[in-house]
Amino acid sequence: MTAETAITRFVAGLRYEALPDTVIAMAKRSLVNFFAVAFAGSDTAAIATLSRQLQALSGAGGCTAIGRGESLAPLDAAFINCASANVFDFDDTHLPTIIHPTAPVAAALLALAEMQPLDGRAFLAALVVGMEVECHLGLALHPHHYRRGWHITSTCGVFGAAMACGHALGLDAGRLLAALGHASAQSSGLVETLGTDSKSIGMGNAARNGLLAALLARDGLIGPEQPLSGERGFLAVYGDPSTPSLANLGLRWETLNNTFKPYPCGIVLNPVIDACLELRQQPGFATYDIASVAVTGGALLRERADRPQPANGREAQVSLQHAVAVTLLRGRPSVAEFSDAAVAATDVAALRQKVRTATKIDRTIDSVTVEITIRDGQKFTVDINPEARATLGLTSNAEISEKFITLTSSQATPTMQYQLLKTLWSIETRTVVGSLMHFPI
Amino acid sequence: MTAETAITRFVAGLRYEALPDTVIAMAKRSLVNFFAVAFAGSDTAAIATLSRQLQALSGAGGCTAIGRGESLAPLDAAFINCASANVFDFDDTHLPTIIHPTAPVAAALLALAEMQPLDGRAFLAALVVGMEVECHLGLALHPHHYRRGWHITSTCGVFGAAMACGHALGLDAGRLLAALGHASAQSSGLVETLGTDSKSIGMGNAARNGLLAALLARDGLIGPEQPLSGERGFLAVYGDPSTPSLANLGLRWETLNNTFKPYPCGIVLNPVIDACLELRQQPGFATYDIASVAVTGGALLRERADRPQPANGREAQVSLQHAVAVTLLRGRPSVAEFSDAAVAATDVAALRQKVRTATKIDRTIDSVTVEITIRDGQKFTVDINPEARATLGLTSNAEISEKFITLTSSQATPTMQYQLLKTLWSIETRTVVGSLMHFPI
Repeated sequence: MTAETAITRFVAGLRYEALPDTVIAMAKRSLVNFFAVAFAGSDTAAIATLSRQLQALSGAGGCTAIGRGESLAPLDAAFINCASANVFDFDDTHLPTIIHPTAPVAAALLALAEMQPLDGRAFLAALVVGMEVECHLGLALHPHHYRRGWHITSTCGVFGAAMACGHALGLDAGRLLAALGHASAQSSGLVETLGTDSKSIGMGNAARNGLLAALLARDGLIGPEQPLSGERGFLAVYGDPSTPSLANLGLRWETLNNTFKPYPCGIVLNPVIDACLELRQQPGFATYDIASVAVTGGALLRERADRPQPANGREAQVSLQHAVAVTLLRGRPSVAEFSDAAVAATDVAALRQKVRTATKIDRTIDSVTVEITIRDGQKFTVDINPEARATLGLTSNAEISEKFITLTSSQATPTMQYQLLKTLWSIETRTVVGSLMHFPI
Repeated sequence: MTAETAITRFVAGLRYEALPDTVIAMAKRSLVNFFAVAFAGSDTAAIATLSRQLQALSGAGGCTAIGRGESLAPLDAAFINCASANVFDFDDTHLPTIIHPTAPVAAALLALAEMQPLDGRAFLAALVVGMEVECHLGLALHPHHYRRGWHITSTCGVFGAAMACGHALGLDAGRLLAALGHASAQSSGLVETLGTDSKSIGMGNAARNGLLAALLARDGLIGPEQPLSGERGFLAVYGDPSTPSLANLGLRWETLNNTFKPYPCGIVLNPVIDACLELRQQPGFATYDIASVAVTGGALLRERADRPQPANGREAQVSLQHAVAVTLLRGRPSVAEFSDAAVAATDVAALRQKVRTATKIDRTIDSVTVEITIRDGQKFTVDINPEARATLGLTSNAEISEKFITLTSSQATPTMQYQLLKTLWSIETRTVVGSLMHFPI
């Protein structure tokens, strides 16, 4: 079966009623986490500039930029809400591919839900469709694709958004194939742009162009017969020569492999932060005069995050030295701890310089040792290892609600936060999803 | 010097006054040809659907869809005018790379010219900037890039559009670098989509996203330091491992290698059509009862265009059998001769079946023999070879004006055609370019 056939059959055939409860539960967690990070991101200078510029270019269009005042045209709202949710890289992660699956799909679907009536079950089914398609496509391309330099969330996200919107629009298999073709013509995004505003533009386009692909397929525009599996189709051009298979689509739910970051930084820093939080529990910690901090982890930690002098908040998100310093000094880190201001703070800068790193070949991504030496020579050590505790993400609805509360607290009253959370956790009972975007936050 | 430095220095430094007269003359030919093909394309079902859908999504925005009634938002106008100009593949061709250079650049610039004042000289200088950047980038990637499956006009066009708009906006080298980063996050387009509406979506985005990249760079959004030459930058990811050079940018004018198609079909068919037109000159041709037609050309002709039964007008554009039949029956072919109706016509279909092809290893792209055998056994032969005549394109202003007249005749009165032609050929004297888009055609 070709990739196109696997996808269009899956998408055309999926019904909400056939979704396992575990998948629905994970889709709702993904959605709550999406709103949390979109609110947090909506307040940044980059998103403000993007949103204002797009509104100036296209005008108001009745769709909502989450956390912002602007009314936007539908494609622009898809763009902005996707970029907002991902700007801090604090959104969710599909661990097998390192795709951030929800942002492109949910942002495109929410714009569509403001254009036409869509109930909560149709919305959730379409959300799962999009996440499954982008993650299974990502699995077919992984790991060659990201290593070569493709920002896999953008390149695969446009297909997820297109299929999610195609499902919500009720497209048949032929029109879904056309939407895949239109998405294939628009797939882009480079790893080189990570840590810059260009990344947000690529991400915004993934949601925007996926929605556009579905709308144009609905309108009858046709694409190639084999946009994915053709000789010069997406899989051949963006992948390596091996033949990828999407045989597990619809059989294995990749949505269940989604994870939710506890901290707004590179996922390799999670165990480092956990270790520092544990060190802070030592009696008398506040009085420590720290001489040095030694961090021992696997090769990947050093490769991705050995960055003693980050220039700004974005770079700090992948600096183990910053993560150590800011956590030991401030406690559990949120968005403010990875801001430009936090990077510039003199106490943080001074402590960053005392962090030493070492690599042990047998250490995995979820294992680290952090050792503090204080002036009098005393040492305090914490080992984090995967057997002892899960460090890669938040797992319960309560933890994700807490993340939502933290990230929306500057923009919403407690009553508003509670009401939106309640709506999102019971979204399958809602008859019109679009109106939740007009929520008074 | 890195590719980024080569480009940003060239773009920031280029002045109209420094352009050779030959380059200015070629840029004007490119612009007239652009308007001709944009008018022709604006009348198709695909462009009508795209334009109406984008207007429904973004609303009217004061920018003009060439040849159509809609007022569009600036980004949408850039999209539509680029897609229109390229929909028939009847636009210009930079032969060394097979890039169609003008559509993405001119479409983006014209939208910008409707947003803010831009005089004729600034417009022409920016047009040359864009064409030079996309063609030199294309040269760096050619031939690996297209062979792998990249639609080079789209993938490089977004950079040309970004640099053209960046020049017109007066961006400094730092902001031009940011615009290159934003373009790198949006570069897309697959050869697999050629012959379908998906191609037009990729093309439209090249112009749209190039304009957006420049506007966002102006607004201060930043990109990576090395969006092109970085380890995971555009050249590494979209190219092969060899290190490409843009050393000739600003020294060798690729605009001078631009060519203009005489017929709305694959460029390999030009000599075939020329031969058929010459055969029609035979005395008594109209009375021939054709038994068979033998076409002998190089390997490339057969590889690209051996298509005995095209399904529609788009496929007919790369069918040598259709080109032979429709030219022998109707004479000099224009857009109507490659329409779905022309493909379905019974006389054309019958003659297509009588066309035989043969390959000779020593034949080049601009050389072909066409031999007609009629019922009584008589044979008539025409040889086309590059020494005898130039078959690859229109070369004079008069020929391009003629193409413009032909392609705009269904939408404009002779007076209007004459006035727009006069304006375009003297565009360097115009103080406000944007207002020419409100021309009453």
